Amino acid sequence: MNHHVQLISRLARPGESKIVLLVLDGVGDIRTAEQPQTALDAARIPNLDALAAGGALGRIVPVAQGITPGSGPGHLALFGFDPTEPTADIGRGVLEALGEGIQIRPGDIAARGNFATADAAGNLTDRRAGRIPTEECVRLVAAINAKLKDVREIDASVYAGEGHRFVLLLKAGATPLDPNLADTDPQQIGVPPLPVAESAPFAASTAAKLRPVVEAIQRAIANEPRANRALLRGFATVPHLPSVPDLYHMRCGAFAGYPLYRGVAAACGMDLVPCGKSFAETVAAVREHWSKYDFFFLHVKKTDMAGEDGDLATKIHALEDVDAILPELLALGPDVVAITGDHSTPAPMKGHSWHPVPLLLWSKQCYVDDCKAFTESAAIHGAIGTVRSSELMGLMLANAGRLAKYGA
Amino acid sequence: MNHHVQLISRLARPGESKIVLLVLDGVGDIRTAEQPQTALDAARIPNLDALAAGGALGRIVPVAQGITPGSGPGHLALFGFDPTEPTADIGRGVLEALGEGIQIRPGDIAARGNFATADAAGNLTDRRAGRIPTEECVRLVAAINAKLKDVREIDASVYAGEGHRFVLLLKAGATPLDPNLADTDPQQIGVPPLPVAESAPFAASTAAKLRPVVEAIQRAIANEPRANRALLRGFATVPHLPSVPDLYHMRCGAFAGYPLYRGVAAACGMDLVPCGKSFAETVAAVREHWSKYDFFFLHVKKTDMAGEDGDLATKIHALEDVDAILPELLALGPDVVAITGDHSTPAPMKGHSWHPVPLLLWSKQCYVDDCKAFTESAAIHGAIGTVRSSELMGLMLANAGRLAKYGA
Repeated sequence: MNHHVQLISRLARPGESKIVLLVLDGVGDIRTAEQPQTALDAARIPNLDALAAGGALGRIVPVAQGITPGSGPGHLALFGFDPTEPTADIGRGVLEALGEGIQIRPGDIAARGNFATADAAGNLTDRRAGRIPTEECVRLVAAINAKLKDVREIDASVYAGEGHRFVLLLKAGATPLDPNLADTDPQQIGVPPLPVAESAPFAASTAAKLRPVVEAIQRAIANEPRANRALLRGFATVPHLPSVPDLYHMRCGAFAGYPLYRGVAAACGMDLVPCGKSFAETVAAVREHWSKYDFFFLHVKKTDMAGEDGDLATKIHALEDVDAILPELLALGPDVVAITGDHSTPAPMKGHSWHPVPLLLWSKQCYVDDCKAFTESAAIHGAIGTVRSSELMGLMLANAGRLAKYGA
Repeated sequence: MNHHVQLISRLARPGESKIVLLVLDGVGDIRTAEQPQTALDAARIPNLDALAAGGALGRIVPVAQGITPGSGPGHLALFGFDPTEPTADIGRGVLEALGEGIQIRPGDIAARGNFATADAAGNLTDRRAGRIPTEECVRLVAAINAKLKDVREIDASVYAGEGHRFVLLLKAGATPLDPNLADTDPQQIGVPPLPVAESAPFAASTAAKLRPVVEAIQRAIANEPRANRALLRGFATVPHLPSVPDLYHMRCGAFAGYPLYRGVAAACGMDLVPCGKSFAETVAAVREHWSKYDFFFLHVKKTDMAGEDGDLATKIHALEDVDAILPELLALGPDVVAITGDHSTPAPMKGHSWHPVPLLLWSKQCYVDDCKAFTESAAIHGAIGTVRSSELMGLMLANAGRLAKYGA
């Protein structure tokens, strides 16, 4: 835990105020010769613009200048952590497992699994098994778990995800397991899955325990028409992150529809509140739990998906959808509202990027700057300036009156 | 001493140039729905605006984003130190003692004292003894010091402050004293003062030496009508801060009318120059000592006091008063003028805050930016940008031609 987190934690005090952090995943975009307006520039978002006019804008840098973050580091930074610290290096397998509500104890290992298709020679022809439906995934997972009961070397089980995705959980026995295991996913077709192998010598005993697990999985699905192989990647243990509720004396609720984001929130000790995937459903869930929490993390995925698809029009619609529901959220009377993203996902780049993410911060003490609209170009001139994403937590707590004065 | 201070110190060289750092305590303010203009927005300050138009603006962050600093950390940052370093953690007792001109050596301990009133049962009824006048405080302190001469365990003495305030100084003998002592001030009425106690086990021997001191003080004032108890808090040793004059090869004079600010300056090795509390008196003292120093720290308290009172009109008048006298200061011909605050004290918040503090930096080489007035909103767009308060020292020295080139 770094110096900055310790300082904020030391000054944090309980209170009655309520903070809403609304993450519009991948919201930041870029202007280019071909795309002269970003989604925020083009969207009709009168409610966001009104909040911007009465609040303060700025920009946040998730990891460091030039660094394109994954969703894990992007969110950990929003929750106040330095995502370059070793403790903040959480494997995707663990994040998805936590997001599915799977209990992971210290010493356990989780990995992400994909069902895949191999030809008669054993070479992969489709790394996603024709994107099988979730029901088929559920059936396969049940068949695999039946076989895994016979594995004596280790307590292993699989959990169905969406479509071709699943999570493998290896439970530690008397001794903790070591996550330094190589992926069995070769990340290409035309070759067979990779054999189980340790990526560091001291993980050899864990690799030895994993081999019968992978063999049992293979026996369970060998005769499937499509999903006849399983590929594993991202072996990881549960992180030793300090709890955000404990650090800052806040009851924290996470309102996110997708496993990865639920997983990051769970890794930080937040409660996972069941909610749908639309912003309307999310806000309805927030309303229902308004008295239960002090800090509300809301996640909107659609902005990022549209950016990943290079689909500016859908990104604009996603923002307009949020804008239409925003008054319902504000009607709950939050003391602090922060609206930003975990990273930028510019439509022209069809992927995450390093560009600073626009931030809208509203409270009664935020300092009303001259920005009149929530756009990347306005945010450049906002009162908050350009700060690290991990600095936002301190700003939210300060605006909520939840930080004591430092020093005499 | 951190890396940045070491670097600046290594490059600093003596010179003939003169630097004026004018601290308008708590100058930064916020715009809100109810207060659409800050004191700087509303004040008629033509001289400050003219200096801004010919200079460069920016903003400084005293400790970190979201952190509300006390005056100690706020000033240490202005003097170039990282206020979050352990060496910069100076107790208020020591700052006030230093500010009163009391000599404190390493190993000595100082504490802040309050005279208080207790009822017949010994429970406190007034933690400030009805705010007794300073003359009464002086009389009580003399009576206490007479009794303290009989204490054999330790060399202790008290010094009168303003009103009900005093400072207790415990001088180290052959072995240094330990400041890990609990406050005897319970911070509430209806209960008796707390007994002397160590706050860490290794301070038990210092606590044992303090007990007869507290008993002697109590004997001296037991029959007073109002000030019949003494409450102690903020036990602290003198900090081991490097000397600003030594670090940067400058003769430094502090022109501050209040003990706390004189104390911070003294802790940094600056000379305390006698001066009144009005800005006119301060500038007169600077004029008198102009040839004696290279670096002039001027402190104006009224802006902060008005902010603490939530009194925007008085804050505006305080700025206009400074503005009226400013030409006299500039007529002395300083090479560098930096005008800023140790923190913001927004009137709507009636207290210190975390908001970045506007900075006006003038020198012949400062880069004349587009800012035409000294306001928070102009400062957002200034050439200096938003930097840490501790970075200002390097900027002042650079503008004064007092920093050598780094590297070949």
